[in-house]
Amino acid sequence: MTGLPAAEVLWEIEAIKQVKARYCRLVDLRDWTGVVELFSPDCVFTHPVHADVTGPRDFFDRVARRITPGVSVHQVHAPEITLTSATTATGTWALHDYVETDDGALRYQGYGFYLDELAKNGEGRWVITSFRQHRLRMDAVPPVRSWDPKEGTSRDHHR
Amino acid sequence: MTGLPAAEVLWEIEAIKQVKARYCRLVDLRDWTGVVELFSPDCVFTHPVHADVTGPRDFFDRVARRITPGVSVHQVHAPEITLTSATTATGTWALHDYVETDDGALRYQGYGFYLDELAKNGEGRWVITSFRQHRLRMDAVPPVRSWDPKEGTSRDHHR
Amino acid sequence: MTGLPAAEVLWEIEAIKQVKARYCRLVDLRDWTGVVELFSPDCVFTHPVHADVTGPRDFFDRVARRITPGVSVHQVHAPEITLTSATTATGTWALHDYVETDDGALRYQGYGFYLDELAKNGEGRWVITSFRQHRLRMDAVPPVRSWDPKEGTSRDHHR
Repeated sequence: MTGLPAAEVLWEIEAIKQVKARYCRLVDLRDWTGVVELFSPDCVFTHPVHADVTGPRDFFDRVARRITPGVSVHQVHAPEITLTSATTATGTWALHDYVETDDGALRYQGYGFYLDELAKNGEGRWVITSFRQHRLRMDAVPPVRSWDPKEGTSRDHHR
Repeated sequence: MTGLPAAEVLWEIEAIKQVKARYCRLVDLRDWTGVVELFSPDCVFTHPVHADVTGPRDFFDRVARRITPGVSVHQVHAPEITLTSATTATGTWALHDYVETDDGALRYQGYGFYLDELAKNGEGRWVITSFRQHRLRMDAVPPVRSWDPKEGTSRDHHR
Repeated sequence: MTGLPAAEVLWEIEAIKQVKARYCRLVDLRDWTGVVELFSPDCVFTHPVHADVTGPRDFFDRVARRITPGVSVHQVHAPEITLTSATTATGTWALHDYVETDDGALRYQGYGFYLDELAKNGEGRWVITSFRQHRLRMDAVPPVRSWDPKEGTSRDHHR
């Protein structure tokens, strides 16, 4: 398909998996500068709430306003990466996200897929060039009490 | 173990991961024809509800009747793939599934493992030849309100 | 970075992914002997509840007392593995865990990251040499009714 040897294709696939892993981790750790660097400046965003976005900086400015202050969890699974050439690829990941803002305006758990396109940029780094989600379901979830990791240790103390 | 070079073993492992990823995605997107093609015609199914199944078409006919109309989410994690020969393999994946039918007859979130065996078929494609689950827990979950992605945007509009 | 050919680096990355997959699976299946073997005897554990632990045997003795009898689910996602030399590596995984003890003293679902260091031991096997978590959130969750897989089959029986 690409003419590349198997080891090189696998190398690129692993690099692409790490881009998406890093994306999720940096969103949840609020490193927005690091997040934006994972996208091409002309990345196309297809999103139900933000239809008129003009690039990654604009998109993640909006995401940051939308989901902070609060806690978000973005977990991705079971990547299906296809190299469409030596420098372009498509990637599908299953998604579970759990977003709650401190003011309670957002409180959901969602399930679906990320349907991305990626390319190697001028520095030889894979970046996301098209960003889209397909949702299976989004649940409005009730508030929960935060668990204190010190709880439930009584059996340790009393034995 | 297989005599294959490392790059070839890794290539087959990646291919097997994509079979399982595709399985989950096509079940949740209701592409039953695509699902059936991921199995050998004589695949052995071990399932608590469907003990007397006669092959993938029969099995997924029953699954389709059982879980539709409704929404399902099947997410798999942390694959442990072992090539047992150049054309056979075992695969273990952690599983989280969330199944709800429109009539409410099914509404659960489950956790456990898929314990699969696979083989390369006549076309050189990996297919599942034995399909089995081990469950850690299955929770009957309450109905939840569906989240509208347009919710929670007030701060965007009013700033 | 390591001077190793791509295929060898990918081989080690895959081996490390399988160590962590096995870790989660063996914890949830209560194979504590198998769990301890995935760690170096001098592994450093950084944990909010068990600050004074002296090695993997001590650590998992405490974990076993804490979470059993009960059911646990540990699922890891989106690994970011970096070989720091031919025999050392760092690994980050997203984590979702769900722990419930039979007496109800523990009942939470947590989200965060594992931040591990690993090394090849004398037998050429990757083991975890530093074990640490970063938590995004931990929810105290209500008890749920266990789902019986035989439920929801009425449509099968009555058609």
